[in-house]
Amino acid sequence: MYDLVIIGAGVTGYSAAMYSARLELEVAVIGDLEGGTITLTDDVSNYPGFSQLTGKELAENLKAHALDYPAYFETGTVQDLFKCKENCFYVVTDKKTYLARSVLVATGMKERELEVPGHEKLKNKGVSYCALCDGPLFKNKVSAVVGGSDSAAKEALLLAKYSDKVYLIYRKEKIRPEPVNAKRIANEPKIEVITKTNITEIMGDDRVTGVKLDRPHNGSDTLELDGVFVAIGGIPMSGLAKKVGVEVNKKGEIIIDRSSRTNVAGVFAAGDVVDTEFKQAITGVAEGVHAAYQAYRYVNENEFVFTCQQDE
Amino acid sequence: MYDLVIIGAGVTGYSAAMYSARLELEVAVIGDLEGGTITLTDDVSNYPGFSQLTGKELAENLKAHALDYPAYFETGTVQDLFKCKENCFYVVTDKKTYLARSVLVATGMKERELEVPGHEKLKNKGVSYCALCDGPLFKNKVSAVVGGSDSAAKEALLLAKYSDKVYLIYRKEKIRPEPVNAKRIANEPKIEVITKTNITEIMGDDRVTGVKLDRPHNGSDTLELDGVFVAIGGIPMSGLAKKVGVEVNKKGEIIIDRSSRTNVAGVFAAGDVVDTEFKQAITGVAEGVHAAYQAYRYVNENEFVFTCQQDE
Repeated sequence: MYDLVIIGAGVTGYSAAMYSARLELEVAVIGDLEGGTITLTDDVSNYPGFSQLTGKELAENLKAHALDYPAYFETGTVQDLFKCKENCFYVVTDKKTYLARSVLVATGMKERELEVPGHEKLKNKGVSYCALCDGPLFKNKVSAVVGGSDSAAKEALLLAKYSDKVYLIYRKEKIRPEPVNAKRIANEPKIEVITKTNITEIMGDDRVTGVKLDRPHNGSDTLELDGVFVAIGGIPMSGLAKKVGVEVNKKGEIIIDRSSRTNVAGVFAAGDVVDTEFKQAITGVAEGVHAAYQAYRYVNENEFVFTCQQDE
Repeated sequence: MYDLVIIGAGVTGYSAAMYSARLELEVAVIGDLEGGTITLTDDVSNYPGFSQLTGKELAENLKAHALDYPAYFETGTVQDLFKCKENCFYVVTDKKTYLARSVLVATGMKERELEVPGHEKLKNKGVSYCALCDGPLFKNKVSAVVGGSDSAAKEALLLAKYSDKVYLIYRKEKIRPEPVNAKRIANEPKIEVITKTNITEIMGDDRVTGVKLDRPHNGSDTLELDGVFVAIGGIPMSGLAKKVGVEVNKKGEIIIDRSSRTNVAGVFAAGDVVDTEFKQAITGVAEGVHAAYQAYRYVNENEFVFTCQQDE
């Protein structure tokens, strides 16, 4: 029986683990991607206190901090979550089943996929979701990033270190990176921004050879290139939470209050999976801290029944 | 004319400065205590990412990070804040007057004073509010901490490094430090916890010589000692904010929403001065980040009139 099971081993889960273990909760952290999606980012320069480091380094710092205190870590996937008739939860992984007094959902987002012909066939054959992971494969080649967010801009900037030419293709009028990255894009001659344009097909048999566009660029509705990096946002991983009655908004994000509580007693949520307007590493980390404290209060203020049966 | 003037140079103000300067706001930070009240704490081991450092070191890291970006810093006291007829603000220090499109109130708390006879006369003559600052003066002496919070416990633990004996005097049934500090207190033979007891007078002429108690301890209603450290919580510094119509709760804390907005357009608030339930360095820092982003949106989405007259 754990006091708190944290689903998700990203920076949010780590900070919640550190705080809840300090508060002497019996805590377990389960995640399939150690460090979470920030480990796919090469440049983090906005986590207050660290001028500049990689996402992997930031996650490692936070994990090391959590390991100062006793917490159980499992690298694995949560396959099921259900509520008991009494006020406890079962968290099921492929390795074991956890009985928990409270649960923190810190499952983050998964990348939204580009749903065009050719995408499925050419995934990992030129289609990628991570410039940090796959950028070096496109050295001296031509690549494109799809998207207009700050993340998309950062992917393009990173790719420009390898590729000879990088297209940044965005469906709307104007890309919207942070000003600091907008300047970097403007000063990088390898990057060409193409706006008001959608990719309609990814071409190639064994490898990506080009893309089709819905608006001609330099007189042609195809672009020859070797790699397509997709950065069109994420889908909140709120499925498990919904299963136990947690409310989500229209985007599928878990609705929380300022203390990271959901509408279900004993279920907390934090990080990229919640309905926070401005989602950053630092804001997710702080939400994890609020969740740890509220779990501590919840566990100490309630009576728990140990013989637990599934409530269906 | 600044886009954002941040009142308060603690960790909250620094993180807001870093983020807002990254977002290319013209930002000024004004504070009288560089680094804020956390600089009075010797042991910070719960800011996610840093296993253990002093409050001063944490503040210096955050300030150094802010200085990576252009921001104007003034060490000074804000003496007045007022709203213009148009949608802008004047922030007045003893050195200059700032015209601001938006304002972040990150003024924190000041220590609550122990209102008993002898307190005023003996302040800095044995009565202190900072064990880190004054602890070494009580080497091989007897001292007391008044209060029952985690902060009070940490003051007592720090004093035990210097004093031969430390009383921790608390009016309620049970002190309520974090579990990790409760253990340390229990394992420190120099510390004696006295509960259900109030100090009614601080005795001494030139220096503290003892305190009177409202309940006898070991048969006596006085305790002989050399130093009294007061740690009975803080008073939110919300006076300036109230002056421009910002709503506060019964405790005097500024009421904010999840994006650090107050009820007054263009006025944001974050950190120890707001109505967050669980106030930590990390939660204040994240609130500062939310405030920076909302100020960025506010400044970019509104028209501002430059000729500004006081609205009284």
